[in-house]
Amino acid sequence: MAEAKRIPVLEVFGPTVQGEGMVIGRKTMFVRTAGCDYSCKWCDSAFTWDGTGKDQIRMLSAADVEAELRSAAGEAAFSHVTLSGGNPALLTHLGELVDLLRADGKAVALETQGSRWQDWFLNIDELTLSPKPPSSGMETDWDVLDAVIEKLRQAGHRAFSLKVVVFDETDLRYAWKVHRRYPGVTFFLQSGNDDVKEQDADSLVRRLMRRYEWLVETVTSSAEWSEVRVLPQLHAWLWGNKRGV
Amino acid sequence: MAEAKRIPVLEVFGPTVQGEGMVIGRKTMFVRTAGCDYSCKWCDSAFTWDGTGKDQIRMLSAADVEAELRSAAGEAAFSHVTLSGGNPALLTHLGELVDLLRADGKAVALETQGSRWQDWFLNIDELTLSPKPPSSGMETDWDVLDAVIEKLRQAGHRAFSLKVVVFDETDLRYAWKVHRRYPGVTFFLQSGNDDVKEQDADSLVRRLMRRYEWLVETVTSSAEWSEVRVLPQLHAWLWGNKRGV
Ligand code: SF4
Ligand code: SF4
Repeated sequence: MAEAKRIPVLEVFGPTVQGEGMVIGRKTMFVRTAGCDYSCKWCDSAFTWDGTGKDQIRMLSAADVEAELRSAAGEAAFSHVTLSGGNPALLTHLGELVDLLRADGKAVALETQGSRWQDWFLNIDELTLSPKPPSSGMETDWDVLDAVIEKLRQAGHRAFSLKVVVFDETDLRYAWKVHRRYPGVTFFLQSGNDDVKEQDADSLVRRLMRRYEWLVETVTSSAEWSEVRVLPQLHAWLWGNKRGV
Repeated sequence: MAEAKRIPVLEVFGPTVQGEGMVIGRKTMFVRTAGCDYSCKWCDSAFTWDGTGKDQIRMLSAADVEAELRSAAGEAAFSHVTLSGGNPALLTHLGELVDLLRADGKAVALETQGSRWQDWFLNIDELTLSPKPPSSGMETDWDVLDAVIEKLRQAGHRAFSLKVVVFDETDLRYAWKVHRRYPGVTFFLQSGNDDVKEQDADSLVRRLMRRYEWLVETVTSSAEWSEVRVLPQLHAWLWGNKRGV
């Protein structure tokens, strides 16, 4: 039975800063789990699900993960852990890690596309639901997303938000649909990194800045968008397409 | 008497996105008031107090400002207004504008150094207190800042934060002192723009990114800093040292 409670972990790293979304800039550690129910065309973590990272997956207990976090942090202080993937919401028993970390005084953030509910979502301090736009090649199951948001609302969860990554006008229309569907939920638009292979830092930054500027200009001049936050991926600007920073 | 209620306004512009702090990325309009009780060495809005913007100051009523906001926005929707300066907290009657905007459904953010209290702070949706570090050449009046934060706490204000701009190690020690003095208050470290004259966009961006990276690396490797958010000034990355964007 103990084996069943292990978590497929691909990366434990930090401290770094959260590069996007509702707690952008927060000093945090990252735990990246393996496995995703999606296969987005532009996934920047495809190694979590496409087989290329298979050999690096380790099956860890919650206590193992906590020990790795401490060891990765070394002398550096941390009070925040971000669970990312893949889709960590595939893991029923990840709640055990959440509880362990919170018992130790850490705040815990989660990023998931909103395709699955888990009861431990209610114990997450900052929960980002990031449904995927048409450019991803994925289809949103609105019934599931509706149910996830309804449960969070009913439970009075104080800090959850929606975030849609936008690459083009079609994505932006999708984002608008999501925003209208869930009024009152804090909404983030994020400019997409359309070249996850580019290794030249300067030209990547220029490209990412142009993408962000386009999104900012489109949204600020819009007669529709008002209650919205538009953010880039800071970590991509700083560290490009490198892993583990 | 009517004249006494006018607001010295230097700029009304937007929509744009907030480039820094607790609502970074938020689509917002800006109202920049004239006058400051400080004279920070690296002030990026020195035209609000050093005389160089004197001819552009207009004495507007709250209704005038609201009309200008609508006119500046044109067809573009907005639901958020940021009051900036100079130090808007010098203006006792600015609360009238705050009330007018909120009655119209707009959220209102304020940035001030925390050197003055105004009762209308309690009606601000997102309040940023930005005490100035040693590199500014200014001295913090701790009694005043203590009283401001105490009043916000006692009133149960839900969304105020501290932000310190950091240029060097001395500033970072000052920031730590502020952070420790007000535990539990959301704390932002912001990397400073140490060249408000640079007009070459590419070299400015490279310099700003290096400043931000230095701050991120210092904080993430630190045994002291943990519950903190580290952010750049996004608008400077995007638009450099230009005004009114
Ligand atoms: S949901 Fe996220 S991790 Fe899964 S494929 Fe899409 S981008 Fe990648
Ligand atoms: S407090 Fe702000 S506006 Fe006043 S001088 Fe300092 S940086 Fe400039």
